[in-house]
Amino acid sequence: MDVLEAPAVTLPSARGPLDPAELERIHAWWRAANYLSVGQIYLMGNPLLREPLLREHVKPRLLGHWGTTPGLNFIYAHLNRAIAARDLDMMYVMGPGHGGPGPVASAWLEGTYSEVYAEVSQDLAGMQRLFTQFSFPGGIPSHVAPETPGSIHEGGELGYSLSHAYGAAFDNPDLIVAAVVGDGEAETGPLAASWHSNKFVDPRRDGTVLPILHLNGYKIASPTVLDRISREELDHLLRGYGHTPHLVEGDDPALMHQQFAAALDQCLDDIAEIKRRARDGVSERPRWPMIVLRSPKGWTGPAEVDGLKVEGSWRSHQVPFTDARDNDAHRTVVEKWLRSYRPEELFEGDGAPVPAIRDLHPAGDRRMSANPHANGGVLLRALRMPDFREYAVPVDDPGTGAVESTRVLGTFLRDVMRANMTNFRVFAPDENNSNRLGAVLEATDRAWNAQRAPDDVSLAADGRVMEILSEHTLQGWVEGYLLTGRHGLFSCYEAFVHIVDSMFNQHAKWLKVTDSIPWRRPVASLNYLLTSHVWRQDNNGFSHQDPGFIDHVVNKGPDVIRVYLPPDANTLLSTAAHCLASRQYVNVIVAGKQPQLQYLGMQDAIVHCTKGIGIWEWASTDAGTEPDVVMACAGDVPTMETLAAVEILRGWFPDLRVRVVNVVDLMRLVDDREHPHGISDREFDSLFSTDKPVVFAYHGYPTLIHRLTYRRANHGNMHVRGYVEEGTTTTPFDMCVLNRIDRFNLAIDVLDRVPRLQAISAHARESLHDKLIEHRQYIRVHGEDMPEIRDWEWSAVAGPSTQVGNQPLVEPVQRCGS
Amino acid sequence: MDVLEAPAVTLPSARGPLDPAELERIHAWWRAANYLSVGQIYLMGNPLLREPLLREHVKPRLLGHWGTTPGLNFIYAHLNRAIAARDLDMMYVMGPGHGGPGPVASAWLEGTYSEVYAEVSQDLAGMQRLFTQFSFPGGIPSHVAPETPGSIHEGGELGYSLSHAYGAAFDNPDLIVAAVVGDGEAETGPLAASWHSNKFVDPRRDGTVLPILHLNGYKIASPTVLDRISREELDHLLRGYGHTPHLVEGDDPALMHQQFAAALDQCLDDIAEIKRRARDGVSERPRWPMIVLRSPKGWTGPAEVDGLKVEGSWRSHQVPFTDARDNDAHRTVVEKWLRSYRPEELFEGDGAPVPAIRDLHPAGDRRMSANPHANGGVLLRALRMPDFREYAVPVDDPGTGAVESTRVLGTFLRDVMRANMTNFRVFAPDENNSNRLGAVLEATDRAWNAQRAPDDVSLAADGRVMEILSEHTLQGWVEGYLLTGRHGLFSCYEAFVHIVDSMFNQHAKWLKVTDSIPWRRPVASLNYLLTSHVWRQDNNGFSHQDPGFIDHVVNKGPDVIRVYLPPDANTLLSTAAHCLASRQYVNVIVAGKQPQLQYLGMQDAIVHCTKGIGIWEWASTDAGTEPDVVMACAGDVPTMETLAAVEILRGWFPDLRVRVVNVVDLMRLVDDREHPHGISDREFDSLFSTDKPVVFAYHGYPTLIHRLTYRRANHGNMHVRGYVEEGTTTTPFDMCVLNRIDRFNLAIDVLDRVPRLQAISAHARESLHDKLIEHRQYIRVHGEDMPEIRDWEWSAVAGPSTQVGNQPLVEPVQRCGS
Repeated sequence: MDVLEAPAVTLPSARGPLDPAELERIHAWWRAANYLSVGQIYLMGNPLLREPLLREHVKPRLLGHWGTTPGLNFIYAHLNRAIAARDLDMMYVMGPGHGGPGPVASAWLEGTYSEVYAEVSQDLAGMQRLFTQFSFPGGIPSHVAPETPGSIHEGGELGYSLSHAYGAAFDNPDLIVAAVVGDGEAETGPLAASWHSNKFVDPRRDGTVLPILHLNGYKIASPTVLDRISREELDHLLRGYGHTPHLVEGDDPALMHQQFAAALDQCLDDIAEIKRRARDGVSERPRWPMIVLRSPKGWTGPAEVDGLKVEGSWRSHQVPFTDARDNDAHRTVVEKWLRSYRPEELFEGDGAPVPAIRDLHPAGDRRMSANPHANGGVLLRALRMPDFREYAVPVDDPGTGAVESTRVLGTFLRDVMRANMTNFRVFAPDENNSNRLGAVLEATDRAWNAQRAPDDVSLAADGRVMEILSEHTLQGWVEGYLLTGRHGLFSCYEAFVHIVDSMFNQHAKWLKVTDSIPWRRPVASLNYLLTSHVWRQDNNGFSHQDPGFIDHVVNKGPDVIRVYLPPDANTLLSTAAHCLASRQYVNVIVAGKQPQLQYLGMQDAIVHCTKGIGIWEWASTDAGTEPDVVMACAGDVPTMETLAAVEILRGWFPDLRVRVVNVVDLMRLVDDREHPHGISDREFDSLFSTDKPVVFAYHGYPTLIHRLTYRRANHGNMHVRGYVEEGTTTTPFDMCVLNRIDRFNLAIDVLDRVPRLQAISAHARESLHDKLIEHRQYIRVHGEDMPEIRDWEWSAVAGPSTQVGNQPLVEPVQRCGS
Repeated sequence: MDVLEAPAVTLPSARGPLDPAELERIHAWWRAANYLSVGQIYLMGNPLLREPLLREHVKPRLLGHWGTTPGLNFIYAHLNRAIAARDLDMMYVMGPGHGGPGPVASAWLEGTYSEVYAEVSQDLAGMQRLFTQFSFPGGIPSHVAPETPGSIHEGGELGYSLSHAYGAAFDNPDLIVAAVVGDGEAETGPLAASWHSNKFVDPRRDGTVLPILHLNGYKIASPTVLDRISREELDHLLRGYGHTPHLVEGDDPALMHQQFAAALDQCLDDIAEIKRRARDGVSERPRWPMIVLRSPKGWTGPAEVDGLKVEGSWRSHQVPFTDARDNDAHRTVVEKWLRSYRPEELFEGDGAPVPAIRDLHPAGDRRMSANPHANGGVLLRALRMPDFREYAVPVDDPGTGAVESTRVLGTFLRDVMRANMTNFRVFAPDENNSNRLGAVLEATDRAWNAQRAPDDVSLAADGRVMEILSEHTLQGWVEGYLLTGRHGLFSCYEAFVHIVDSMFNQHAKWLKVTDSIPWRRPVASLNYLLTSHVWRQDNNGFSHQDPGFIDHVVNKGPDVIRVYLPPDANTLLSTAAHCLASRQYVNVIVAGKQPQLQYLGMQDAIVHCTKGIGIWEWASTDAGTEPDVVMACAGDVPTMETLAAVEILRGWFPDLRVRVVNVVDLMRLVDDREHPHGISDREFDSLFSTDKPVVFAYHGYPTLIHRLTYRRANHGNMHVRGYVEEGTTTTPFDMCVLNRIDRFNLAIDVLDRVPRLQAISAHARESLHDKLIEHRQYIRVHGEDMPEIRDWEWSAVAGPSTQVGNQPLVEPVQRCGS
């Protein structure tokens, strides 16, 4: 072991903490795991090589990644020794998750694999199955995956190991998460940012992440950056991240075993000391230990094949040679390679691991492959939820009383927090207060264990509001937190949630797959609150306008995704309470943070949210009859503009039969055969009619509504208005005008599409166009919307009016509380 | 100036390199820029405060970000001194681009602003306009934006300043890019990763990035991580990134001016020395200098308002107080604040800057606001392009001769590279060879200036293949490279290009806005090659399956986005050559890297790609008549399966009139009123008919095709097959079966939908279902597709056949060259 720069413990290289028996046991485990890994990649028969390796024993398509696997197995073996010796509660997060054969092998050696997959028994038949299923039709993926016992970390996309590990460690004070960071992965942005997670850990309240940076030197084809900077630079970097690095470097197994065991012992001693100090009340940000393991890529694999270096080279990244079935020479290499592990010493006659191996690993839940934190659903406790109805905003008259809906939600979240101070956190990229969730800080602080200054507010080591300006780190944290059986809410500016599009993909895929794995227990849903949304970017402009995360989300499986657009505070409360109690979904809630009119009292809000879509009778004028037009809306701003358009139309045409349909649950638009929240054609037709014009004001890109409804009978009559990419600097209402979801354009749409209005609406149309011109002129002079627009409220009893021209169509009403 | 830990130059704090006149000039510039910045945020009248500040002089909606602005202005002033003194070619990239008022103020002081926006003249009327337009309807955004002269970096989303700066510096050996990194931005993943860009710089061939980490201590509401770690940790971190940091810290302007000037001189001296050594042939990765500027947030703003700290606090992040119009006391604070800069000393009677200020900044193109690199189109030279037809794959019979199309493209790119060794680069996350573009390495190497090992291949400091395992860094590099007037291609695994969804958004928005800015000259398009696509993830599985980037892209403005799905090598060549020559677009090319059948000879490929969509007569049987069915396809795998289905159907029903329509340019499906590449209803109907069944096999999510075509007459008859989220481990063909874009299911679709087949196709349908069952059984045993599937080729003269049951429907044909 070699501590970079600042020597701590230096051992004579030939000696170490392992006695010969321990060394032998660890080495046997490693050989067994490596044997099983190579077997998974290459073999579909003759699993213990009890006969010569023939063509038909080798898989026809060789798929998988060998290069990183022996390193993962090496670490696994050593962690097992430490877990057993110290009775540790430890999880294993594998950043280089392409090395899927490794943890599968270890889970099989520990018996866990056979417990959850009985057909992959701990004997020769099971080993045969273990090998054949790997990356085989109907089998298991080649990466660490939901199917892998002991994992919370999909091994496909790289960059999230550390943030997942920290998410797992939060609020689990006795848990140690050993997190292997690949040196390829370490080049990614999300990984690079997540090192700083250690500033958000409270050593008393939270568990420990033990990073193990695995320098195996190569990616697919190129060297890795961190392997090719000087030892001094690497040491600086890791100390700059706040760690004390311990270097283990070499390729001789005996020396490496001793070195790694010593480094691990040192780290665990240091962690124990840090935890002891924390329990004793010492307030500090500790300098957490970590390990740097520099070992050859494809370690223990063939040194050379066809004269080309393989071990210690990028050539061992995937399958070192893919023609081992038909190329006799290469098949011989595979056979020699496999036999080099001496399987006859590792497995009994029936194929089960020999006692020396079984003795190494801990028992029961202490096995990393069986650690309950890695199957968080088994630890999940339901949130203790206050009654969200008690946070209701009183709504005397619908469409009045502007309120910041997310601020109301904040009071509810505050009390959710108070009732769940060990298993609930909220996450935001420094936007908790900007998103009006500031009340949560009455219940807890922002997590912060870096330096503090006198003027800081609401910072504490044990805070539960997680803020770092990295959407990636936050997403990783919340995923790790949820997958280990806890609850959370991630609030984010709508436009910038695209930063985690790809992470969302991976999490949604994880949920989808776990739905079909019986031993994986359901976990709490991932709840997004998207605010600072596209319609109110007055302070930011075009770069902050993108409502497309919804489009991205609905591409994922209907089993796991839900999208909600509550139009006001009470519907937001109802929606949020529902989402927080749900399991196995990704819930996307879109709700603005700016003051907005309130429509539904709490009882009505609950009914409306439960239905997810419905006619707003109080705003409609088609009672008991066929409507002339359906005005549909989804989203807070579109809802307001739709109602304002209705009011204008009612003023002019008191006998116009307008039906207002509001959509909270966007998936209600879908066919019930395609989404669990979908509605039948009959229900859809009863809301939208089969032949009447529909003017639909939607929060996001209008094509999404078409995409969700194109099979409906009345789709040909649906005219959807939504956001179109047209950036400019303007006022809130003018954003609507530019995108034609404003009250005037929506009213014009109706005039254009209702046959019986087409002949009689010339004056009205003229007047609406005049208003649009007047509006544009006004804002260019005054810089803000006309008061009659800005302060508009719904006037329930608006009588008929024939005002045209420059007269206000609707008398301005003072906004309550403004 | 204080060099962290390792002292280099230490100046007595009261002294420094600036003589009193220089100090005075710099300070005057800073005051003027700050004055103009505050004016932009607050004022809409009385620009020079020649009368008391009244209510009507203050904007009604106060929008913008003050906190970071004085720091940006401070640095600008100092860079100007250095540019003038050393005749530097320097650009300014502002990571904290929310401070938009700053660079606008500096551009106005330099005269550039008035040159490109004549109405914002360098006088009182212009200043009035400068103030009013800021974050005002019809005016300019509050962030650094395309409208800002001198910028290539939108100030909305954070994290890309360094990667943009490096992209600008590549191949510009004499350019220095001063890149301000905000300490908020520094927490993001993309920024954290991009520090390592310095390992990819050749000091002889490339320019220099001078990072200036601006610690102003706070984000919106919280402290920043890098401001709250120990000085030692920060020093370690920055040295770990490979830099030598120079710290400038304080709040006293005079001392800070001297310190910063000294630090900057030191850095520029060091850079000059590094460049000299490089020119002298010294081969090394230099330890580049950088500056850490620790200054108060909202520096020079009000110290306190209403008893609360503002300067040096998060409270100055945006507009320190937003009621300055109506609150007299606050308006007085604004007036005092503005007057504290002593505008009467800074501006002439007519409002123009005084000579002392005008003397500070350099002239002409040396002004950072006028640097031509920041308006790359003016420097753009067209690529010298070899004739792509010379790389054609011979196609004797369509649908035969499997070839890795991207490998063919690689040979073309190799020669594009050879012809453009100073202004073309290719970018990939360590996937250049995996994506079969390895031939490029015959023309150049991978850029690599970290350590090298004996077994490395194709690495060189002056390599032009840019590989780092960070899609974010690559995207930032390529954007910076393009925006400064060069050319590039970014190849990426299809699923993981979602990692840069949000960066794509910002770049597409940038292009869209620049289209309407006359002085911004067109730049080369951003070309994505998405390969390792969804249909061939045999080695990786579900986590690597996501064709949704296309969906994401088409949400952006039709003016700037193009999507191509060339089905074979020759169409790929034609498409790529077209894209490389184009301007101001984002081109997305999706093409697999696995061996695939070839369909079109080069001449046919050019015709087909030029049309973008067309009937493949050679595969169709409807010549001169109405078709019974249209079989449409977009993408390489869907095209192959469609043709195989056609062959099956032709075998059974020789008189069936099948029309095969292949789509290369996806935007051709769109209405020509909505996209420049769209086609009219008449054209669409002539291809797809108005009433015949259409079976459409599409590469991506099928809803996209519906979304693009829902207004077409025949949309009700379109049955689209594409990718559905159903992850499992399987074979290439079985991926198609799972998603029902395989030949058998497509043929069944036709049997189901062509009325005259419905009565007579019972045996055929039965046989197809049998094949599906046989296939599934086969792969579960053998692990690979049946040879007749795997080796299928188009048999142009396939005669009628009535084979049913377990007989092969089509005789297997040996694949050429396999």
